[in-house]
Amino acid sequence: MAAVILHKKRKPRLEQGHPWVFRSEIERVDGEIEAGQLVPVHNHLGQYLGTGYYNEASQITVRIVAYQPLEALTTKVFIERISSCLQHRKRFLRDTESYRLVYGEADFLPGLIVDKFADILVVQILTLGMDRCRQQIVDALVHVMNPAGIYERSDVPVRELEGLAQTKGLLHGECPKHVDILENGLRIRVDIEEGQKTGYFFDQRENRASIAPLMTGWGARSGIELKKVEEEGVSQTLPVNANGKVVTFPYWDGATVLECFSHTGSFTLNACKYGAKKVTCLDISEHAIESARANVQLNGFEDRVEFVVADAFDYLRQQVKGLDERKVRSSVNVGQAKVDTSKPVSGGRTWDVVILDPPAFAKTKSAVEGACRGYKDINLHGMKLVNEGGYLVTASCSYHMRPELFLETIHAAATDAGKILRLVEFRGAGMDHPRILGVDEGHYLKFAIFEVRSR
Amino acid sequence: MAAVILHKKRKPRLEQGHPWVFRSEIERVDGEIEAGQLVPVHNHLGQYLGTGYYNEASQITVRIVAYQPLEALTTKVFIERISSCLQHRKRFLRDTESYRLVYGEADFLPGLIVDKFADILVVQILTLGMDRCRQQIVDALVHVMNPAGIYERSDVPVRELEGLAQTKGLLHGECPKHVDILENGLRIRVDIEEGQKTGYFFDQRENRASIAPLMTGWGARSGIELKKVEEEGVSQTLPVNANGKVVTFPYWDGATVLECFSHTGSFTLNACKYGAKKVTCLDISEHAIESARANVQLNGFEDRVEFVVADAFDYLRQQVKGLDERKVRSSVNVGQAKVDTSKPVSGGRTWDVVILDPPAFAKTKSAVEGACRGYKDINLHGMKLVNEGGYLVTASCSYHMRPELFLETIHAAATDAGKILRLVEFRGAGMDHPRILGVDEGHYLKFAIFEVRSR
Repeated sequence: MAAVILHKKRKPRLEQGHPWVFRSEIERVDGEIEAGQLVPVHNHLGQYLGTGYYNEASQITVRIVAYQPLEALTTKVFIERISSCLQHRKRFLRDTESYRLVYGEADFLPGLIVDKFADILVVQILTLGMDRCRQQIVDALVHVMNPAGIYERSDVPVRELEGLAQTKGLLHGECPKHVDILENGLRIRVDIEEGQKTGYFFDQRENRASIAPLMTGWGARSGIELKKVEEEGVSQTLPVNANGKVVTFPYWDGATVLECFSHTGSFTLNACKYGAKKVTCLDISEHAIESARANVQLNGFEDRVEFVVADAFDYLRQQVKGLDERKVRSSVNVGQAKVDTSKPVSGGRTWDVVILDPPAFAKTKSAVEGACRGYKDINLHGMKLVNEGGYLVTASCSYHMRPELFLETIHAAATDAGKILRLVEFRGAGMDHPRILGVDEGHYLKFAIFEVRSR
Repeated sequence: MAAVILHKKRKPRLEQGHPWVFRSEIERVDGEIEAGQLVPVHNHLGQYLGTGYYNEASQITVRIVAYQPLEALTTKVFIERISSCLQHRKRFLRDTESYRLVYGEADFLPGLIVDKFADILVVQILTLGMDRCRQQIVDALVHVMNPAGIYERSDVPVRELEGLAQTKGLLHGECPKHVDILENGLRIRVDIEEGQKTGYFFDQRENRASIAPLMTGWGARSGIELKKVEEEGVSQTLPVNANGKVVTFPYWDGATVLECFSHTGSFTLNACKYGAKKVTCLDISEHAIESARANVQLNGFEDRVEFVVADAFDYLRQQVKGLDERKVRSSVNVGQAKVDTSKPVSGGRTWDVVILDPPAFAKTKSAVEGACRGYKDINLHGMKLVNEGGYLVTASCSYHMRPELFLETIHAAATDAGKILRLVEFRGAGMDHPRILGVDEGHYLKFAIFEVRSR
């Protein structure tokens, strides 16, 4: 019988729960194995370690799918696995009908991604082993989920590492081009045919909801102060407005918010929902801003959102330049230097909350250094634009930017900016993106909320 | 005027937002400074860096309290700072009247801890600089919070590093020995005079709530399976019980839970609240179990909780031994070896959810290695006792056990136990324990939820 035998000298990756066997770890292959076929993997002593699908053409030559002997990835196997995926989502995501249903390796289905948008499923097949099971996958999804339609979005370059062409199209039933989903009670229109990846990013659902407490309670600007008040004989310190009236905390004024790299505008929508007063929604792409605008309209938030098509790096720098210019001019009033004050200052806006959710800057390990500069740059400028005591909301989805490095980079930016940051939230991807301990590849998303104060 | 001048060669700690000046960083002290007095700190070029309180007797000789010149820590200063603390808690903790109000350095009040238990405040003063401000602190707390009473729990050895004696007692108003608080809707009785530290640990409030999804949905045991069902002409895969009846997800059977190191039983209470069927609540201390029992009764959960006074290390090992023994016996039925099966197996119980919330094993840096062994031991045995597909809930409050090391230790345990762990939650302390970026000393708590599967 065919089998893959591993080298004596290799890391005990499989024993540690990691499902990948690299070509360099294989000592020999006994028998004939067809591409995509299941094969048992043994260590150098002939001990069975697991069963995976084989692709000679890939650096990741075997991906383990079971730790007990398994003949084939039948429809029945997929039904069991997908049912288990569904059970996990039902347990942890009780209030949503749209989520990542299958997350590849982390759901014990390496190479398979399935996103659920209301009653439509979007499938991404990344490996040859999974590609050979397309029909079983569709049959199992229909059996377990009974969707209105299944659409394939395997138009990703990573397939080429497996010797596969990119492909997309309908797999089952009927799929509209646009699907409306609900997230945190907001309506979002997803373009399943042309949107990035599968059309929408679920990984920040919980992170987007976590900005809620930042969106209200901005009293200082409208003259709200904490004052000692006598009420029914009891003396208490309470927030009081300019007229001396007590106001209750969550009903203070809404925040001003800047969202950079807005894509579909998902943070902007959540900001509005949770009470923001005014949101500046910025992206470099006209197409992205159009989709954000459509979503803002869908939810009736037009009055509170302004849209900017611009490069975030340039825009942030421009605002900081304006701030600095104002500082120079105000010191001129008491000072000596000659400054041309005839022109109005451009830029120099500040916000209560600045949100930075950039695309991955470091796509490879060697790009980390440049990426650090990029993250430092936007965070440095971003935090300078936060009003005193306001919040910087910042994320990185580069796997190579490890969590500690991400925090160090922001810390370095704070030191340069003369700011003290208080970490209020530090999160990863949501519950529909579980993570196998020891499989760091799946742990890519970092999300942080910092309170920003001047030093 | 008196001033502290720092060495040229030192880490730019202050510039990075860290409020501590170590004795070894001080080049010289100009003028006379009384112990506890505020003093400006300058770098070797004479540039002003910040103002802090001074204590020659402490290794941490200055603790910075302001980045602008400040004469004294007056009642007014404390009122402003404590109001800001209150505002932060009101923003992020809207549903509770009990929380950590002041968290020392992270709230820009180094050396001061204030916990709010309903209308009672418990104060912990850790440094000489703060000790000298006792009256201003009390006056400010009364002004801002208007509490029924303020009690001091400065009975902590760390004060000796500052040349201070341990002390406790009433500071203001009236304080009962026991205060009932509400947490996540549960009643908890706090012994403010004799309980550990200030009487109760708020840092895991959100973590305790996060076990909610684990407490229901345990269908397999009662014969619930996912089956294809025809309903009103639509075919769907749904959970069905042994009688063929469809059951809805969150109303499946409750979990069986083991809580080790229960202290006041706070995880046990949350487990019951969120639907656990049966909880085993374990602590080595009779006194701890008595307080857990009182809290369980206060909430009417007596029928679902059993109490065990035992050493968690021993108890877990004993259960694993019993499991192993059963495996041996069942293989004897088909096998050869001679095993005495006349005695019943002791131990060998398993649970859907095992919770490990131990005290700090590593109190110093040099104790880390031993602590790793301790954490590995309890987690190794703990995860072996989790039913297939169940959850391990595990925490560490040792600062020296850094997050990555904590995860590595649990990963090593999983490898040895033949388990694959999926990380579902990874959290720190709650919102009333903010963290200044760059001040790692405040970042002590790690909390994780893992799904446990056999490899």
